[in-house]
Amino acid sequence: MPDHSQYTSSIHYDKRLYRHDIDGSLAHVRMLAKQDIISQEDAASIADGLAQVRREIETDVFPWDAGLEDLHMNIESRLTQLIGPVAGRMHTGRSRNDQIALDMRLYTKDVIAQTIKGLRGVQGSLVALSERYPKVVMPGYTHTQRAQPVLFAHHMLAYFQMFRRDVSRLRDAYKRTDVMPLGSGALAGVAYPLDREFVASELGFKEISANSMDAVSDRDFVVEYLAAAALCMTHLSRLAEEMVLWSSQEFGFITLSDEFTTGSSIMPQKRNPDFAELARGKTGRVYGHLLALLTVLKGLPLTYNRDLQEDKEGFFDTVDTLLSTLEVFKDMLASLTLHKSRVTSLAGEGQALATELADYLVGKGIPFREAHGAVRQLCQFAELEGKELSNLDLAEYRRFSPQFDEGVFDITAESATAARNILGGTAPIRVAKALAQAKKLLEDEADGL
Amino acid sequence: MPDHSQYTSSIHYDKRLYRHDIDGSLAHVRMLAKQDIISQEDAASIADGLAQVRREIETDVFPWDAGLEDLHMNIESRLTQLIGPVAGRMHTGRSRNDQIALDMRLYTKDVIAQTIKGLRGVQGSLVALSERYPKVVMPGYTHTQRAQPVLFAHHMLAYFQMFRRDVSRLRDAYKRTDVMPLGSGALAGVAYPLDREFVASELGFKEISANSMDAVSDRDFVVEYLAAAALCMTHLSRLAEEMVLWSSQEFGFITLSDEFTTGSSIMPQKRNPDFAELARGKTGRVYGHLLALLTVLKGLPLTYNRDLQEDKEGFFDTVDTLLSTLEVFKDMLASLTLHKSRVTSLAGEGQALATELADYLVGKGIPFREAHGAVRQLCQFAELEGKELSNLDLAEYRRFSPQFDEGVFDITAESATAARNILGGTAPIRVAKALAQAKKLLEDEADGL
Amino acid sequence: MPDHSQYTSSIHYDKRLYRHDIDGSLAHVRMLAKQDIISQEDAASIADGLAQVRREIETDVFPWDAGLEDLHMNIESRLTQLIGPVAGRMHTGRSRNDQIALDMRLYTKDVIAQTIKGLRGVQGSLVALSERYPKVVMPGYTHTQRAQPVLFAHHMLAYFQMFRRDVSRLRDAYKRTDVMPLGSGALAGVAYPLDREFVASELGFKEISANSMDAVSDRDFVVEYLAAAALCMTHLSRLAEEMVLWSSQEFGFITLSDEFTTGSSIMPQKRNPDFAELARGKTGRVYGHLLALLTVLKGLPLTYNRDLQEDKEGFFDTVDTLLSTLEVFKDMLASLTLHKSRVTSLAGEGQALATELADYLVGKGIPFREAHGAVRQLCQFAELEGKELSNLDLAEYRRFSPQFDEGVFDITAESATAARNILGGTAPIRVAKALAQAKKLLEDEADGL
Amino acid sequence: MPDHSQYTSSIHYDKRLYRHDIDGSLAHVRMLAKQDIISQEDAASIADGLAQVRREIETDVFPWDAGLEDLHMNIESRLTQLIGPVAGRMHTGRSRNDQIALDMRLYTKDVIAQTIKGLRGVQGSLVALSERYPKVVMPGYTHTQRAQPVLFAHHMLAYFQMFRRDVSRLRDAYKRTDVMPLGSGALAGVAYPLDREFVASELGFKEISANSMDAVSDRDFVVEYLAAAALCMTHLSRLAEEMVLWSSQEFGFITLSDEFTTGSSIMPQKRNPDFAELARGKTGRVYGHLLALLTVLKGLPLTYNRDLQEDKEGFFDTVDTLLSTLEVFKDMLASLTLHKSRVTSLAGEGQALATELADYLVGKGIPFREAHGAVRQLCQFAELEGKELSNLDLAEYRRFSPQFDEGVFDITAESATAARNILGGTAPIRVAKALAQAKKLLEDEADGL
Repeated sequence: MPDHSQYTSSIHYDKRLYRHDIDGSLAHVRMLAKQDIISQEDAASIADGLAQVRREIETDVFPWDAGLEDLHMNIESRLTQLIGPVAGRMHTGRSRNDQIALDMRLYTKDVIAQTIKGLRGVQGSLVALSERYPKVVMPGYTHTQRAQPVLFAHHMLAYFQMFRRDVSRLRDAYKRTDVMPLGSGALAGVAYPLDREFVASELGFKEISANSMDAVSDRDFVVEYLAAAALCMTHLSRLAEEMVLWSSQEFGFITLSDEFTTGSSIMPQKRNPDFAELARGKTGRVYGHLLALLTVLKGLPLTYNRDLQEDKEGFFDTVDTLLSTLEVFKDMLASLTLHKSRVTSLAGEGQALATELADYLVGKGIPFREAHGAVRQLCQFAELEGKELSNLDLAEYRRFSPQFDEGVFDITAESATAARNILGGTAPIRVAKALAQAKKLLEDEADGL
Repeated sequence: MPDHSQYTSSIHYDKRLYRHDIDGSLAHVRMLAKQDIISQEDAASIADGLAQVRREIETDVFPWDAGLEDLHMNIESRLTQLIGPVAGRMHTGRSRNDQIALDMRLYTKDVIAQTIKGLRGVQGSLVALSERYPKVVMPGYTHTQRAQPVLFAHHMLAYFQMFRRDVSRLRDAYKRTDVMPLGSGALAGVAYPLDREFVASELGFKEISANSMDAVSDRDFVVEYLAAAALCMTHLSRLAEEMVLWSSQEFGFITLSDEFTTGSSIMPQKRNPDFAELARGKTGRVYGHLLALLTVLKGLPLTYNRDLQEDKEGFFDTVDTLLSTLEVFKDMLASLTLHKSRVTSLAGEGQALATELADYLVGKGIPFREAHGAVRQLCQFAELEGKELSNLDLAEYRRFSPQFDEGVFDITAESATAARNILGGTAPIRVAKALAQAKKLLEDEADGL
Repeated sequence: MPDHSQYTSSIHYDKRLYRHDIDGSLAHVRMLAKQDIISQEDAASIADGLAQVRREIETDVFPWDAGLEDLHMNIESRLTQLIGPVAGRMHTGRSRNDQIALDMRLYTKDVIAQTIKGLRGVQGSLVALSERYPKVVMPGYTHTQRAQPVLFAHHMLAYFQMFRRDVSRLRDAYKRTDVMPLGSGALAGVAYPLDREFVASELGFKEISANSMDAVSDRDFVVEYLAAAALCMTHLSRLAEEMVLWSSQEFGFITLSDEFTTGSSIMPQKRNPDFAELARGKTGRVYGHLLALLTVLKGLPLTYNRDLQEDKEGFFDTVDTLLSTLEVFKDMLASLTLHKSRVTSLAGEGQALATELADYLVGKGIPFREAHGAVRQLCQFAELEGKELSNLDLAEYRRFSPQFDEGVFDITAESATAARNILGGTAPIRVAKALAQAKKLLEDEADGL
Repeated sequence: MPDHSQYTSSIHYDKRLYRHDIDGSLAHVRMLAKQDIISQEDAASIADGLAQVRREIETDVFPWDAGLEDLHMNIESRLTQLIGPVAGRMHTGRSRNDQIALDMRLYTKDVIAQTIKGLRGVQGSLVALSERYPKVVMPGYTHTQRAQPVLFAHHMLAYFQMFRRDVSRLRDAYKRTDVMPLGSGALAGVAYPLDREFVASELGFKEISANSMDAVSDRDFVVEYLAAAALCMTHLSRLAEEMVLWSSQEFGFITLSDEFTTGSSIMPQKRNPDFAELARGKTGRVYGHLLALLTVLKGLPLTYNRDLQEDKEGFFDTVDTLLSTLEVFKDMLASLTLHKSRVTSLAGEGQALATELADYLVGKGIPFREAHGAVRQLCQFAELEGKELSNLDLAEYRRFSPQFDEGVFDITAESATAARNILGGTAPIRVAKALAQAKKLLEDEADGL
């Protein structure tokens, strides 16, 4: 029979957790010694050995052995080579089941912090971009149809809000990750007088798991990270889509910097927005990883089952995908050029100000629905005549409502945006305030979690 | 050309939001009057008309018209019939885009509260079940293989913890749902001096949306509910799987009450755990709805796009599925019978106490790995001999380690559980404390959110 | 305890299968009589009763009873009312497990045929549209950047190919659906001398299931339909995306007919492509249903489990979604207007002909990579100068390659498309042939499967 | 700005396609020479260079350069080093867009063939296992409740049927993969007189793509493989679930060989079915990859977009997962031990023969529903009395139907299976025939596709 051990081996990907695994073992061993479960000498010897193991890994001289299946076994085996059978005491009062739960939680806490940092970077670029073009008016869209003029900065700050929710969501996920599982043993708790609070404190955990059977089979925190990542990628995919559209010749709103476009092997003129497209595409894989883990967990009886080993690869890939995509967006946004005159000219063109005309009639006392109906007819008339609304004369306006007067010619994209002077609205004064708040939030929360 | 209007119609499912839609309109209209945007008389007339509409809907006499596409149009049309063209003033300073965002948020807040209540119900049954069998020992499993004895109550409380996280997750989602979007207009904010704080306060919202473009295109709160629901269904599916396994003839651990089993059209003896199976199966549809909405949102440019209409059916079905499944589990758990003697006898049978033997040797000073190795050989020996560990004599024990002495015969399933006297462990004293805490938590938080 | 029977009830959706269920029962009963398992009189009586049941259902007078859980029970119960206890003989040699498998297969065969018909309808509209604009040149895109000119008809026929694969895929799925499961009983086969070939022949099945345990637990054919539907919706979503982009003001390529656009409650000028957007959005739900059923099936032990009841709602919704979306596209495509002068003028604009220039140099003997490099520099030069390539003079061309001569000015969008005179290419002569083949295929296969 | 080129680089995974890429280039170049588009000398020089490149890759001395982004660029760059600028002629009349489409199709054709071979291996083990235990009777289950006795071989052959459908599905997918895209250029076809038929024939393709725009943007064939793989993993996950259940102490049906179980770091007695669990878990990742690619493709405008680069990693991982899982099952099944006496004794135990009793009454002329009702009451009576059905006396039987006579004691698990003598049924004579057919099928189709 051929050797199938590769099938269950995880060492090629779980080695990523080496730092968390060693940190966990060190804290566990310190506690074992404190509780007189092992001797101080043994603890010191193990600690020295683990320090050596860590150095070897970090200097790439560690003798990884795929035959040893996983990270824990690789480290323990090397430790035994280094310090002899006393290495065997390290695993006292511990199981691989609570050990891997610990490693995963330490790692997840780390990556949540990194992800928040990445989000802050993108938010910073959005703020900087808004500051660069604080009053540029552009067409706002619904249904990919021009709807009403908005400030470019207002559009950018919409994404700021999305990423703000992402940060908030990750912080909440952090709370449920910040729970120390060691002491749960294989499933039932352990028969040694461990000091779980001590271990938690050493490792910086806020809480201690309350039920051993739950603790070894719980991967909710990974799912929750994946779900948060899926939403975050969704936001990035929407921004990516706009980058792609806006850099098309038809829109012509922006030019991406050369770093974020690529040429074609056959078409010499091409400057393709490959980074934005790829980010949009990578959304799929994050959704896939979320669904994969949910599928793994569905219907699993308690407690630990080997299926749970499948919690890692998709998770790690999600982390790598999300962090790198955030890095890309930070710099892609920072380096793009907005074509101000192009977007400004389109902002008031065509029938983009039709809502203003309706509001104008409402201001004259006409019920909204009636005003809306009059302007709709006006728009159809203009289209048939092949004219822009701004090129109609007053007589033409008045064919649709006698309430129209000269004031109608004061309506511009600028007046339209200025009129939306309401909390959350696109009036320049409101956007300036929102921008100031965004900057302040970034400063106040610069320290991460 | 055939009529395709049915394709875009949503009235057959969005009518579910009628209460929230009317509440929102009432608050909006009160505010419009307070701000002198419409007259008090008009406001009163609209309020009376909406009250009438609500009564008609609740007494099933409302003239729903599929031709009117959606809930908003049905209500406004009927309102116009009832009070005349003044109905048209209700929509002043509002768009269907921010209106539906409001309705969805009001609804989601409601269903989060209901879901938490449903979770509390299941937790209550778990607590009651644990109290009914507070000290029954049963086999604990890893890999669906007997591992170590645990208390049945400990096993049940593992699920208590999962549902506790579900509650916590939903509360966090609530925060991000509790944001009032009205005033965002179609996308850019509105040109009327609305008092958004007033509307928020009237409707019981904590926050006001900070960016109009984000507010009309944000469905994060629905995704977040779906993700929380997916995890919650995952937990229920695990419990369902155990109900199915435990009620098999092979396990024979429990009997489900007749209400939760069904017979066969062909096999007269059958008592199938259909409810548990169906709950397990329904997990799939909730995963599907989560993926569906993520897919809808992926790559959508700002702001509102008609794709967003797809945020409802899967969401509503998720709510119905989750709430009814929670109801089922509450009563299915409450009414099941545990076969105490069966589970107790299995708890110490076979090699379920092997870990105890290893710990026993560690207690004699042997490094854990060595003790583990000795007991592994002992187990293989017993298996070859066809004996239970408890039937070996001391001489046989000592063939594998000279440290074994008479004390080995004091090891029982009860001693094994009692030994796991650690926070989160399965010792009866710990489980009793955990049970008391669980009860207290339910009492303290009986009031919902 | 509240009544939970609603939880397991399926009658509100499985009633859709009534026709297939009755057809199946009729064939089964005919066979029972032929085999002398029941008497001819009983068979005749059951057949009369079932005919009556069918009439009652089709005239909406059937007394559906939610308390009777499912379709089978509703029909059998009514049959018993109509013809007395002899109704009980109908279920001889049959189980609900093989009965529902039969119903689902009959239904799936029907919907595959309907879906293929729907696809033919869309293909017909693509062909008609291509014939309406057989030689219009438009910009072809990669990366949503203009790449090379193509014929509009060539672009449309790309979708023809996608739908052709969909048809092919559904036909293959049909083969695996066309398998008669009756006779499998609950799981083990039945102890009656049934004539399975007879039943298969009566019901128009090509094959008979080969293993009873597989037959009652197999839902592969539903998954396969869902997967085919997911791909088909993917194709429609791509076309929808192009409808949305092309009808934006920025592209301005097409105008959708009024039936397929909708206005705004607030913006009087809007003509939103709601149908295309909704179709794009509905792709999500079909993906979700596919994932849902896969999740249901994952890890299910043999044979029938109640989880399998979850094979229906998502499937039925997929069928409804796909069939209605195909209907929408058939008419939306048939009624759209292409702005010929707009797309034609853009086809040769800017740097869309750069590849032609490189090919031109290759024609002069320059290796492709070198030619490509020269034209890339030429394009950068033109961009810096703010000129179109077509406005450069020969001296400017020759700065980048001495091989350029007067012939360069003969390059146009038309010459570029004509040059791609290769099987599958966009040359008008090739597209005309492809169009003729497409028409022939539709004629040859007009008869469905 | 940091270097982001890693983000778009694919060389770390697309190098897997080197063989297909080189084969494709060789055929393309031969054709270019045949068509006099390049000279025979240049073609020979390129062919020699590519042979050298292939040797370097296969002997692990190829200078992979991550800076060169992808496989094509790495190969072309090395080729240029080896043979000079003539290397540039290789890309004449080709784009990376049709080139990667070709590579992916060649690769997919290969892996379909390998997957079918893997499926044949598992089917072979199922057949061998059935032959090893051709007449062993075991309990058959519905709802994880004992239902009716079945032959173990019948149960195994149910899986044979599932995998047979998988083979059939993959063959159908093969047809749609077997289409040669070269000549499509970037999107519009090429302006060179390529001989596409020649290239197709050289590379062993049956068809040539009919539309260039479709050809460069089509990834249906990858989705179709993923969907087929998802179903195949579903089947394997069901078998895995049964391996896990059957090797539990409670079932005790089988023992997996040591190669397919693993121990515990803490519980010395454990023999966990890790391979089966991991296979079950890996189902999730395949579902995830399927959904990921569908998500990538949703709403993509024509033609090539960089999002399409995301077609590879999940696909490759699916291939590796599926092929290795098939290998594992082939050997895991071949080496398992069935505990014949255990399963046989359970087959007739309890109320597993209740259906037989009902059929027995039907044989006496009682309508099925009535017989079913009588036996149901009999079962309840036996349960209350705490007796097995086989231990009731005739008087007890006759309390529920006067039709019971001595013949009732002839009913056994063996008689029950023998009675199901119908095509697809579990009667030994039928199973033997099914087994013979299965063997024949494997022999007839040993040659692969």
